[in-house]
Amino acid sequence: MRDFSRDHSALALNTASLGHNIEGRGAGWEPERVIDACAARGFGSIVFWRREIGLRAVEIGDRARAAGLAAAGLCRTPFLVGADALDRTAVLDEAKASIDMAAGLGAAVLTIVVGGVHPGTRGTVESLRILADRVADLVPYATERRVKLALEPLNPVYAGNRSCLTTVRDAVDICEMVDMPNLGLAVDVYHVWWDSDLDAQLQRAGKNRIFGYHLCDWLADTQDVLLDRGMMGDGVADLKAIRASVEGAGYAGPCEVEIFSANNWWKRDPGDVLDVMVERFRTLC
Amino acid sequence: MRDFSRDHSALALNTASLGHNIEGRGAGWEPERVIDACAARGFGSIVFWRREIGLRAVEIGDRARAAGLAAAGLCRTPFLVGADALDRTAVLDEAKASIDMAAGLGAAVLTIVVGGVHPGTRGTVESLRILADRVADLVPYATERRVKLALEPLNPVYAGNRSCLTTVRDAVDICEMVDMPNLGLAVDVYHVWWDSDLDAQLQRAGKNRIFGYHLCDWLADTQDVLLDRGMMGDGVADLKAIRASVEGAGYAGPCEVEIFSANNWWKRDPGDVLDVMVERFRTLC
Repeated sequence: MRDFSRDHSALALNTASLGHNIEGRGAGWEPERVIDACAARGFGSIVFWRREIGLRAVEIGDRARAAGLAAAGLCRTPFLVGADALDRTAVLDEAKASIDMAAGLGAAVLTIVVGGVHPGTRGTVESLRILADRVADLVPYATERRVKLALEPLNPVYAGNRSCLTTVRDAVDICEMVDMPNLGLAVDVYHVWWDSDLDAQLQRAGKNRIFGYHLCDWLADTQDVLLDRGMMGDGVADLKAIRASVEGAGYAGPCEVEIFSANNWWKRDPGDVLDVMVERFRTLC
Repeated sequence: MRDFSRDHSALALNTASLGHNIEGRGAGWEPERVIDACAARGFGSIVFWRREIGLRAVEIGDRARAAGLAAAGLCRTPFLVGADALDRTAVLDEAKASIDMAAGLGAAVLTIVVGGVHPGTRGTVESLRILADRVADLVPYATERRVKLALEPLNPVYAGNRSCLTTVRDAVDICEMVDMPNLGLAVDVYHVWWDSDLDAQLQRAGKNRIFGYHLCDWLADTQDVLLDRGMMGDGVADLKAIRASVEGAGYAGPCEVEIFSANNWWKRDPGDVLDVMVERFRTLC
């Protein structure tokens, strides 16, 4: 395992952790200010959300690199299946627009949050089949633009309306079905920490399929399954064990802190939040 | 698969579906009234909660049988691990008291909801080990009293503070570790509907390990992960497919409707709720 205690250049900020800095959430810092604050603290990379950068993708990507940060990723495609994804053509067009934005930003990875159970179906199996079909259409487009697509399994609590993809196991299955090198998966502690099959499935994925590793913590008495994520060390996820599995499978990329926290971290000064991230990352992750 | 369209004697009521009829939830019907209402509608069995029957277990069990209903089960043991289960002796003593109550009721099965991540540990692995150790202590006591113990995996959203046991896979693992015939598992649609590994794990469990099958539905846009369960047919779980798996593994016991629904079903007339259950069970499950 990598030693972060003296080198935290693997640390990446997902800007969601500062409340996206839009829509009245967080302190409202502009992307440039977030970039500088991360660079000043030795973060190695940054991950933006589409809504934050709009038409400024190229400019902001260049600005991040000028400050010494890589653009590790962009969040995210639209839902590809589910109630909001009935129109296949419209969904794929918007997904391609998100790929274009990732390419403009110079982001290595675009995350796919897949969407829930597809209307007219029950359970997750048929939705996953539709998903695989749609993803297969997107991968060549992304490959041409040098953007990797990362399927992100979400906690099963979201299976109804956000992600019929709930486990690394299912994500690897889809990667194997589609079988193109530009398709992989992202592993987020929040979504997979409970899974006793995780290590085996990460080994099965292997280093060529793991495109991202997301950090936060699961609060034992979580108050909200969307907006009450914990800072690393404040919850019950076994962060060291999960990273050992992820790195044991060959992953050596950024560790991206992504904390949605409406009533705690989003209310704090962003500089303080970044300081805590660095300290926790070096000592607990 | 069994055909319920003309014979719904496999249908069981879990009294939670009527709001437990205590604590200001539901219509406040006494157990006797619930028994008669179920018997009148052709339910084959009933499952009570400890809090509902208190010291009246023997009396209520006899009353149910006199009305033609089997006492299919009792809910439930105390949490065996987690923050409320630090004192091993106290927890096992209370669990034994719940076994005694199940024996008094004449219940075939006592459900174990296991509790969350054990204090001082992270992740679920160590908690599951402690759980297996404690369960191994309980099974002989239950065997002597002819009560089967059913480990119930809960949806991973509860892994922090209610159930470090999240999958049928983990439940079968514990059954195999403990390796006593009186220990098995309960399969609840609400908790496992999303799991693409379910069929394989149920086959692995086999008919001698599946002690219960619980019905409800997962509402796609669920508003509360505790008290917003759906009636069969109102959600996105593939009920027919899950039952095919459960029965394919050899299960031929009761199908127990357990719906926690503070803002919908608990507000309705219990007789109407029971009527809807029968109709949905015969046509959709």
